[in-house]
Amino acid sequence: MNNKLSGLIAATYTPLDDNGQLDTDPILPMTEWLITQGVSGLYVCGSTGEGMSLSGAERRKVAEAYVQSAGGRVPVIVHVGHNSLVEARQLADHAQQIGANYISATCPSYFRINDVGTLVDCMAEVAAGSPQLPFYYYHIPALTGSTLDMVEFLKLGDKRIPNLQGLKYTDTKLHEFQQCLELENGRFDVLWGCDEMLLGALATGAGAAIGSTYNIAAPLYLGIMDAFRLGDLVEARRLQSLSVEMIRAIGKYPFHAAMKAVLGFNGFDIGSCRLPQVRLLESEIETLRNDLSLLGYFEWSQPSCRLSAISS
Amino acid sequence: MNNKLSGLIAATYTPLDDNGQLDTDPILPMTEWLITQGVSGLYVCGSTGEGMSLSGAERRKVAEAYVQSAGGRVPVIVHVGHNSLVEARQLADHAQQIGANYISATCPSYFRINDVGTLVDCMAEVAAGSPQLPFYYYHIPALTGSTLDMVEFLKLGDKRIPNLQGLKYTDTKLHEFQQCLELENGRFDVLWGCDEMLLGALATGAGAAIGSTYNIAAPLYLGIMDAFRLGDLVEARRLQSLSVEMIRAIGKYPFHAAMKAVLGFNGFDIGSCRLPQVRLLESEIETLRNDLSLLGYFEWSQPSCRLSAISS
Amino acid sequence: MNNKLSGLIAATYTPLDDNGQLDTDPILPMTEWLITQGVSGLYVCGSTGEGMSLSGAERRKVAEAYVQSAGGRVPVIVHVGHNSLVEARQLADHAQQIGANYISATCPSYFRINDVGTLVDCMAEVAAGSPQLPFYYYHIPALTGSTLDMVEFLKLGDKRIPNLQGLKYTDTKLHEFQQCLELENGRFDVLWGCDEMLLGALATGAGAAIGSTYNIAAPLYLGIMDAFRLGDLVEARRLQSLSVEMIRAIGKYPFHAAMKAVLGFNGFDIGSCRLPQVRLLESEIETLRNDLSLLGYFEWSQPSCRLSAISS
Amino acid sequence: MNNKLSGLIAATYTPLDDNGQLDTDPILPMTEWLITQGVSGLYVCGSTGEGMSLSGAERRKVAEAYVQSAGGRVPVIVHVGHNSLVEARQLADHAQQIGANYISATCPSYFRINDVGTLVDCMAEVAAGSPQLPFYYYHIPALTGSTLDMVEFLKLGDKRIPNLQGLKYTDTKLHEFQQCLELENGRFDVLWGCDEMLLGALATGAGAAIGSTYNIAAPLYLGIMDAFRLGDLVEARRLQSLSVEMIRAIGKYPFHAAMKAVLGFNGFDIGSCRLPQVRLLESEIETLRNDLSLLGYFEWSQPSCRLSAISS
Repeated sequence: MNNKLSGLIAATYTPLDDNGQLDTDPILPMTEWLITQGVSGLYVCGSTGEGMSLSGAERRKVAEAYVQSAGGRVPVIVHVGHNSLVEARQLADHAQQIGANYISATCPSYFRINDVGTLVDCMAEVAAGSPQLPFYYYHIPALTGSTLDMVEFLKLGDKRIPNLQGLKYTDTKLHEFQQCLELENGRFDVLWGCDEMLLGALATGAGAAIGSTYNIAAPLYLGIMDAFRLGDLVEARRLQSLSVEMIRAIGKYPFHAAMKAVLGFNGFDIGSCRLPQVRLLESEIETLRNDLSLLGYFEWSQPSCRLSAISS
Repeated sequence: MNNKLSGLIAATYTPLDDNGQLDTDPILPMTEWLITQGVSGLYVCGSTGEGMSLSGAERRKVAEAYVQSAGGRVPVIVHVGHNSLVEARQLADHAQQIGANYISATCPSYFRINDVGTLVDCMAEVAAGSPQLPFYYYHIPALTGSTLDMVEFLKLGDKRIPNLQGLKYTDTKLHEFQQCLELENGRFDVLWGCDEMLLGALATGAGAAIGSTYNIAAPLYLGIMDAFRLGDLVEARRLQSLSVEMIRAIGKYPFHAAMKAVLGFNGFDIGSCRLPQVRLLESEIETLRNDLSLLGYFEWSQPSCRLSAISS
Repeated sequence: MNNKLSGLIAATYTPLDDNGQLDTDPILPMTEWLITQGVSGLYVCGSTGEGMSLSGAERRKVAEAYVQSAGGRVPVIVHVGHNSLVEARQLADHAQQIGANYISATCPSYFRINDVGTLVDCMAEVAAGSPQLPFYYYHIPALTGSTLDMVEFLKLGDKRIPNLQGLKYTDTKLHEFQQCLELENGRFDVLWGCDEMLLGALATGAGAAIGSTYNIAAPLYLGIMDAFRLGDLVEARRLQSLSVEMIRAIGKYPFHAAMKAVLGFNGFDIGSCRLPQVRLLESEIETLRNDLSLLGYFEWSQPSCRLSAISS
Repeated sequence: MNNKLSGLIAATYTPLDDNGQLDTDPILPMTEWLITQGVSGLYVCGSTGEGMSLSGAERRKVAEAYVQSAGGRVPVIVHVGHNSLVEARQLADHAQQIGANYISATCPSYFRINDVGTLVDCMAEVAAGSPQLPFYYYHIPALTGSTLDMVEFLKLGDKRIPNLQGLKYTDTKLHEFQQCLELENGRFDVLWGCDEMLLGALATGAGAAIGSTYNIAAPLYLGIMDAFRLGDLVEARRLQSLSVEMIRAIGKYPFHAAMKAVLGFNGFDIGSCRLPQVRLLESEIETLRNDLSLLGYFEWSQPSCRLSAISS
């Protein structure tokens, strides 16, 4: 199997203009910045990137723009999940053609899947669309409603999905995550997907994490990883606590629209979210800016603060 | 506003071949048969028609085939709901171009909608794709997870969606259905969507119903309507009871795959369902045939039995 | 088996004083009034009566007061459901000793029951506490979270619960209700529990109904029954529509606390609800009174209006 | 405020005889053994102890037996949660009278609580029953269905519940747990309640944990704590992994009934669970014993293995 991913993978945002139309221009500078911030991979068109709210044509354009912007410097994972497995497979094929490094997919959710065998069958169909790319199943029960056992999924998937690489695990069950990590002597790459629990995941053995807040505070999370590696749990907790408070402040509003506003604070004008996600009022954006400022966000989110953070 | 629909609208199936590929050939004979059975409208590419499991290209082909097959003899409602409102709107535009009579859409469900205002905004965007066609919001909380108040939706939608015609109401709350029916002196067309409760809906004031089992037993349901109209509640209950037992027999299996098998019993070879829906084993299909036979299905599902049914 | 119940069974309220202490004094006059209103049975210490919020000692006192007040004029059903089946069984034994006519119980809900066999085992244990009284299982999935199949429950319960009489069916699935009603040639007494859908239930075959709003508007619901019996569905719908609007007006507030306020409007000072249910502010009570007044509640809730209602 | 608890608190089981009747005899020897195993506190009549399935009289007897058996050597927390706050308060009063050290309660769950203010009001009423004992709110959304924000609960509870000590936090959200731990400079004692995630909780700052599997494998968990303290995360993960596999093996069966069987393997004949919880077949018990044996349970669950475990 392929090498495992490591470090922080940003679940990237999709820039839109004021009319909600796709605007790929900010993708290159944003990618440059993310790399500067210390991000080591990009996950494109997932929940964060509003993949489900884009048309198929738009998803292809966004994937292309991120693959080009990355230019091989960091790996790009393209999310291709769709209620229609036909569409998902076509998106997988496209991702392979444009030079993406990995694909990933959620399960269909309009028709609920009730057993692991069917889930594996569905994902086998998608993964077959890009046979040369390793495939990560994207487990996010809060959005898909699918709570099937991931240990069973990996065991069965191992037999039926040749390019199964692992999971994007976006749930809070550390014990299930740990079992998936350790299964078959660590054969699978299991990426942690709950930013506000990164420290607990590191203790449990996580090697890489995917999340939306790595777009706006990678230095903070790299500080958690550094402190953890050095055995300084007090500092790791302090930094994780800042992350928890930051996420709580952002989470007072529709989450991804608020995150896009925070990217705006960092100089990236990428618009708000598309319906059905709701946008923030201007006044809410200002309150959010102020709340984050009070938490010190504008200091500790900078790369320059990473070393000082852990030495403070 | 437009005339209201009446009678039984079949939520049609999408024929697939043995490889799960779209096969539009059976659509014309099936449409002929449905009209013969007494169906007075077709609802295309909804949950029953696996709309969400088809690609956009396939949805267009299915819609075209049903519109052509209907040939103006019965109205065709095209379902265009999609997680991406952009795709939904394009499907709405297509439906208008090909001569569909109505459009309808579920709300996006990957990102959950939490307030009526946002739901109306979403549906306004979709309905604007086919401004000349009346629009039915498709309320089906069991699949979308959206349980917002339909009375409030209609009140607010009336102001913001010029072509709002009403609802396809697929829930069991007769009281909410009744309020929607009676709102603003019956301004909206509210189509009942729970076949096994048709009699209760008629008592409450329903004028039309959309459902999947009207594909396979329209004469039975027309018998319920006849008996109800004549004030013969004993007979209406007897026929509804047959419907309940029939649906229970079918519902022992993955529902729509089993329904497609029943259409097979009626001479239409339309394959099984696509993943994520699961197909039946051959042995299950035979058991189902036998169970339905024991219920008398192969007698009372015939048009010839309709009059005798209510005179028995 | 015993005779079936008929007409309207009021799910009675438990009077509390201003300190939330039990006050049985209003029970006699309230019972007299309910009988005058046309109620034909009393269901005591259920969800409406805050049975779960009372101590075992209080539940016994309330049951005694209602049995005495009824004085044999109308049957009394005592609800004995409890998370502890030991307590439930003792309450059943007590109900039998004080001369109640029937018992009823919800299933335990803290530990969720996942199969019909276990549900039957649990209810057998409770029903054995009062072997001489017929037993109604109280199906209310919105509160217990238990959505098990009631047809299967009755079939299996028939074999293991000697005094099983039927169900208090508080859900909106008319088809399941109909199957339960018709099972084994109508062997079971299945009481309809969703007041705002009474008309649909009558069409389906309901003979009796239990509900909380029969405490405050029995004449309205008797009017629905009269109109239905006479075949006047237009009138029946008109009256049901008033009920739906009344319930919507009350449901803007914490439901049972608001219902107790409405009983206050009718002259019964029975306090508010106990925690965890929330009480209304005085200002909310006045708004509610006004809203109900605008709906004409204070006219059509009177027995004298019953005949005029259906002749209007 | 009181001293915080530390180490492992066993959520104790309630011994029943073959007829499901309470049998307090095994409580003393089981308590002795738990202390020998290294347990530093007892949580009585909670979910594990089937508190909700016991009568009030039985709950009192169990609490008395554990308080006497502990004899002051380890603190005893008595769970008094009940759908009836009156009963809960009386149980709290009783716990104080018999010399318990702490009380704890879940919220009522039959009537769902929808806001933090009401939750605080409810818990204030319970906690007032034993004003001299510190009170832990027992947060277990999987059983109560109450998912209210615990940070808000503690903030508001601090003002209205004089004896509020903290939480028994039985959920998987480490970030919420961390915020509760750190709130007001660590004013509250927040006990971790998810055994299979103990390592992640330790990394996040947990000082004590309550759980059912500490009854049967305290040495294993103390090994995790030791290894974590020494900075040996590889060993800590290895031991946690054993815990996860052990819990998965037990969780193939009705959990608490299977746990009681495991206590049987350790020499304590405490019967099975009461309905609505289901008991295991004899054959299932033997399969479970074998599965645990294959995992090495009968070695590493012994106190003698604790040191060797971490030196292996």
